[in-house]
Amino acid sequence: MIAVLKSGTTLAQRNHLVDWLKAMHLDVHISEGAEVTILGLVGDTSRIDMDLLKSLEMVETVKRVSEPYKQANRKFHPKDTIVEIGDVKIGGGHFAMIAGPCSVESEEQIIEVAQAVKASGANILRGGAFKPRTSPYAFQGMKGEGIQLLLKAKEATGLPIVTEIMNISTLDLFTDVDIIQVGARNMQNFDLLKELGKTNKPILLKRGLANTLQELLMSAEYIMSEGNEQVILCERGIRTFETATRNTLDLSAVPILHTMTHLPVVVDPSHATGKAGLVAPMAAAAAACGADAIMIEVHNNPSCALCDGAQSLTPTQFDSLCKQVQAIREVVL
Amino acid sequence: MIAVLKSGTTLAQRNHLVDWLKAMHLDVHISEGAEVTILGLVGDTSRIDMDLLKSLEMVETVKRVSEPYKQANRKFHPKDTIVEIGDVKIGGGHFAMIAGPCSVESEEQIIEVAQAVKASGANILRGGAFKPRTSPYAFQGMKGEGIQLLLKAKEATGLPIVTEIMNISTLDLFTDVDIIQVGARNMQNFDLLKELGKTNKPILLKRGLANTLQELLMSAEYIMSEGNEQVILCERGIRTFETATRNTLDLSAVPILHTMTHLPVVVDPSHATGKAGLVAPMAAAAAACGADAIMIEVHNNPSCALCDGAQSLTPTQFDSLCKQVQAIREVVL
Amino acid sequence: MIAVLKSGTTLAQRNHLVDWLKAMHLDVHISEGAEVTILGLVGDTSRIDMDLLKSLEMVETVKRVSEPYKQANRKFHPKDTIVEIGDVKIGGGHFAMIAGPCSVESEEQIIEVAQAVKASGANILRGGAFKPRTSPYAFQGMKGEGIQLLLKAKEATGLPIVTEIMNISTLDLFTDVDIIQVGARNMQNFDLLKELGKTNKPILLKRGLANTLQELLMSAEYIMSEGNEQVILCERGIRTFETATRNTLDLSAVPILHTMTHLPVVVDPSHATGKAGLVAPMAAAAAACGADAIMIEVHNNPSCALCDGAQSLTPTQFDSLCKQVQAIREVVL
Amino acid sequence: MIAVLKSGTTLAQRNHLVDWLKAMHLDVHISEGAEVTILGLVGDTSRIDMDLLKSLEMVETVKRVSEPYKQANRKFHPKDTIVEIGDVKIGGGHFAMIAGPCSVESEEQIIEVAQAVKASGANILRGGAFKPRTSPYAFQGMKGEGIQLLLKAKEATGLPIVTEIMNISTLDLFTDVDIIQVGARNMQNFDLLKELGKTNKPILLKRGLANTLQELLMSAEYIMSEGNEQVILCERGIRTFETATRNTLDLSAVPILHTMTHLPVVVDPSHATGKAGLVAPMAAAAAACGADAIMIEVHNNPSCALCDGAQSLTPTQFDSLCKQVQAIREVVL
Repeated sequence: MIAVLKSGTTLAQRNHLVDWLKAMHLDVHISEGAEVTILGLVGDTSRIDMDLLKSLEMVETVKRVSEPYKQANRKFHPKDTIVEIGDVKIGGGHFAMIAGPCSVESEEQIIEVAQAVKASGANILRGGAFKPRTSPYAFQGMKGEGIQLLLKAKEATGLPIVTEIMNISTLDLFTDVDIIQVGARNMQNFDLLKELGKTNKPILLKRGLANTLQELLMSAEYIMSEGNEQVILCERGIRTFETATRNTLDLSAVPILHTMTHLPVVVDPSHATGKAGLVAPMAAAAAACGADAIMIEVHNNPSCALCDGAQSLTPTQFDSLCKQVQAIREVVL
Repeated sequence: MIAVLKSGTTLAQRNHLVDWLKAMHLDVHISEGAEVTILGLVGDTSRIDMDLLKSLEMVETVKRVSEPYKQANRKFHPKDTIVEIGDVKIGGGHFAMIAGPCSVESEEQIIEVAQAVKASGANILRGGAFKPRTSPYAFQGMKGEGIQLLLKAKEATGLPIVTEIMNISTLDLFTDVDIIQVGARNMQNFDLLKELGKTNKPILLKRGLANTLQELLMSAEYIMSEGNEQVILCERGIRTFETATRNTLDLSAVPILHTMTHLPVVVDPSHATGKAGLVAPMAAAAAACGADAIMIEVHNNPSCALCDGAQSLTPTQFDSLCKQVQAIREVVL
Repeated sequence: MIAVLKSGTTLAQRNHLVDWLKAMHLDVHISEGAEVTILGLVGDTSRIDMDLLKSLEMVETVKRVSEPYKQANRKFHPKDTIVEIGDVKIGGGHFAMIAGPCSVESEEQIIEVAQAVKASGANILRGGAFKPRTSPYAFQGMKGEGIQLLLKAKEATGLPIVTEIMNISTLDLFTDVDIIQVGARNMQNFDLLKELGKTNKPILLKRGLANTLQELLMSAEYIMSEGNEQVILCERGIRTFETATRNTLDLSAVPILHTMTHLPVVVDPSHATGKAGLVAPMAAAAAACGADAIMIEVHNNPSCALCDGAQSLTPTQFDSLCKQVQAIREVVL
Repeated sequence: MIAVLKSGTTLAQRNHLVDWLKAMHLDVHISEGAEVTILGLVGDTSRIDMDLLKSLEMVETVKRVSEPYKQANRKFHPKDTIVEIGDVKIGGGHFAMIAGPCSVESEEQIIEVAQAVKASGANILRGGAFKPRTSPYAFQGMKGEGIQLLLKAKEATGLPIVTEIMNISTLDLFTDVDIIQVGARNMQNFDLLKELGKTNKPILLKRGLANTLQELLMSAEYIMSEGNEQVILCERGIRTFETATRNTLDLSAVPILHTMTHLPVVVDPSHATGKAGLVAPMAAAAAACGADAIMIEVHNNPSCALCDGAQSLTPTQFDSLCKQVQAIREVVL
């Protein structure tokens, strides 16, 4: 870490600061210039509060040289993490296709969709049981019952399942769930992350709508620092000024995360774009830039004419998406 | 709510949609144009999922005419909500000055700051006990012990206290806390909001870094729909591309929230700007545009030369801030 | 266009508004509801100032049903525009690879790069002669002389050339330039757009850093409404809160622009990401989601060890990028 | 400027870089650490291209210690710039109230508004003659004729006038205009800025919708580096995700610009908020945080019932705004 002191800083002020830094077990290298003085801080700076340091009157600027995340850091763990869920692997060259309905609605629905997506090549089933909704008056999901139905679909198809947790008090319901999802709105619910870090389940951690990639890795670090190293990162669109899409899918996150971290990266084009017509091209793009998994909303409800054209794809649309994604993966491998 | 159907929608498709809407207890007024058909939906549309409706193939656009928040809505509750904490009132022309240190550090510190800010005119004491931190390696606050120290400062000065909750499982520790704060990162932790809605404590709800004002009101609605109507909204800066300040303080939120809702609005210039030198001018601006309360970080640690100039103000700086805010309030009332 | 009037609007106020709208040659359909009144405006609403309408006291909300762009609109021109530059075609299934150095520096440099990128499959040469720079003290390009050198490279290789105009007064220098580029910072320099609309040159119009896709199309409309229909749109990254990349490449813009407009869409991953290591994966992603052309910075300066690893690719790196992009295009076609 | 080199950089690579930097007349101080090597660059670094430096493979990070703007920099010109227009002064404790209609529409209109705003205390008249519009089909202003009408209003009232230039070729029409405005969309039209730098007129430079404060100062630097030091900066709202207001007024820009630069700062709450009801509170807030001038849209068109409630204020509303702003200025001075 580098701290640049303003011209005009007195020796006494500087000594105060240096003593304080040394008390935090850092070595301090002082390099005096004509206009500014630079302090090079060596040691474990991940515990230093950059905001506090920056806010000091005498400090012009502070710059991290080493990243504040350690266990998630590619530098210290050059080898790709491969998350294994039974026979399915994600990361390190292994690719997963995750698919399923937005919400679990009935046993018939979830089993039918599970069978359809499996036939097209999906190897993990997704489905919402606990649904975070902006409005308290909107449908909040089938909750525990929804998880039971997912387990029936798992039994019927052999597909492992991923579903979202919103509250650590419901953890018991997730005993047989294969991957626990943390939603974008809970990405910085640090208490939830810590508790999930004490489990032995893979965690699918979605990027918050206004969170940087570094913050995403710091949240992964919360889970990993408690002992659980099976974290899958998920890019699902960020909030920008553009309104033509629901969110802006930040696909550059995929190759750049691969340089920052050894953890696998999933892309969710369904939630990011909010439009069925954009899901297939953005899934193709995600595969082309190296995503380790893609997560797609698929529904199958022939009795509901309304659903045609929603953000979810039909099984037929999903089937051609899978073929294209597969063909692109063969090109880029 | 208005839904515009695309040209080319068949009568059969339209009838499907209309039947579905009627099944949700809405009256549907159809107005057929040359190019488009407009459906006017009358009834309780707050339960309708706009995203689902928008995503239908046949739907060009959907527009809410009435707001999705009800209990927080000024239209249905024209009179200002006044939150009362003992003798202190916030809202409806009553102004509160909330001040205190970022974190509670010791009994001596918190009592000293409490006495200082009280002498300058603060009528509520703030102090962090549970601290949400981006890094798992950073200081996470004194937790329960910190709340005990705040209570000692309350006893010593008579000031009511406000402090942040991060996890509903710690609610017991807040029994004697006067106002419970929900931080920006937990603004859409809906399970936490619902549980706080079941308490009888005033809730200070901070706006998330990337949340719209409507979303802030929907989160207030989560609390209110469980029975707790004592919600104080807090503008504390939003995330933008500008890096000269930590966040961008959105002061227009104050007068516009006053048209949207009857709930009081607090401004926190300390966290928004992250720079001590900007706190006083932005506190003055907040008072000028009608804030119902202002929340300021004040420290008092003469033994720590480092702290001078941090985001926190000294008691002396806070004292002149109070005088200026008071003078501005007299002008704008 | 739909205007929703607030409850409480008097008949006299409404009649004033309706008369004013009729005076602008619009048919007005009134649909009265219990809470609100909806005006359906039929006719050429592209001349209506939405901001003015929205700002009226009596108006709750205004919503366009038809888009304000006409000549750029896919609805009125369903067939893809194919821009032809000699033998090279862009759009309607025709793909172009545009490559070259950031700045033209010397005859030797530009010819060498031109030959290299041609050998790898590029069919258009790019190179900056007039350089928009944030700082007045930074290198502003070789200007007219730079264009002369580009023309020499065109002569040497047969590649058509594209370069940026910053000021209409320099138009004469562009007589033999094949495609004129308008930079992101000039996307809403309307006087420049109008003048370029009077030329018969293809215009490569870059999206502004904070401009919506609709605004991009409105700027294309400025050019087209003066008679020049050969507009190529360019996505080059938008400004967001994320700092890991220079800008955020908004790749969803490609498929969504293809639904909004018949104009071809180019992607520039070099400027968007600012990092050489991200250019190839994002070029692959752009090809996968349907870009009509890709624009890549390539340098060739073996004497300058500094340049290795800059945002620009080496000819060797560009060569493998071309192969991968070509393979992906075969998959997605 | 500080450049941090990655671990693994060879001595040969480092020497190349150091030689290149020295060739640009910089002194280079090398400070070698265990993990990283830091280069301190001393001299005129304003000509260094940070993006190029950052993009080098061997460079971990680059950080400016001194700002890239010089003539606009408070450090080198500690004294406030006072812009004088006849008797009116802006900056250094002098405050101006700028008011007038959005567009000049007729002689009667502009004179009537000018007289009204003068009576309330405005000392500069604004009015749009050349209007930048998103749509080529929208009203583009009265152009040269509009300037003539502004000059008549100036003659009738004695108020100096400010109006926007869009194209340097129209400069002759601005001979008798007192302050030339550069709009937000042209903030980085560098050729226009340079030409205005050669005039001797005060320039009111509006911040672009997605431009940082540093970029605003770099654009001021373009004008100043050509010899014109009379630049007035204008905050008029930035583009964010929030849609409740047209843009987000970034009022912290006022006090922070005052630390960065000696130039005066104007606030335009009318364009920022787009809602008449927010103009007065945000004008009050602007005065409270130290704005050197405030710019307000005022119309006066009793025959047009439509205009009530638009973004523009009536003369009566403007009159009370002026009184409040005046009272607040007395408090904060």
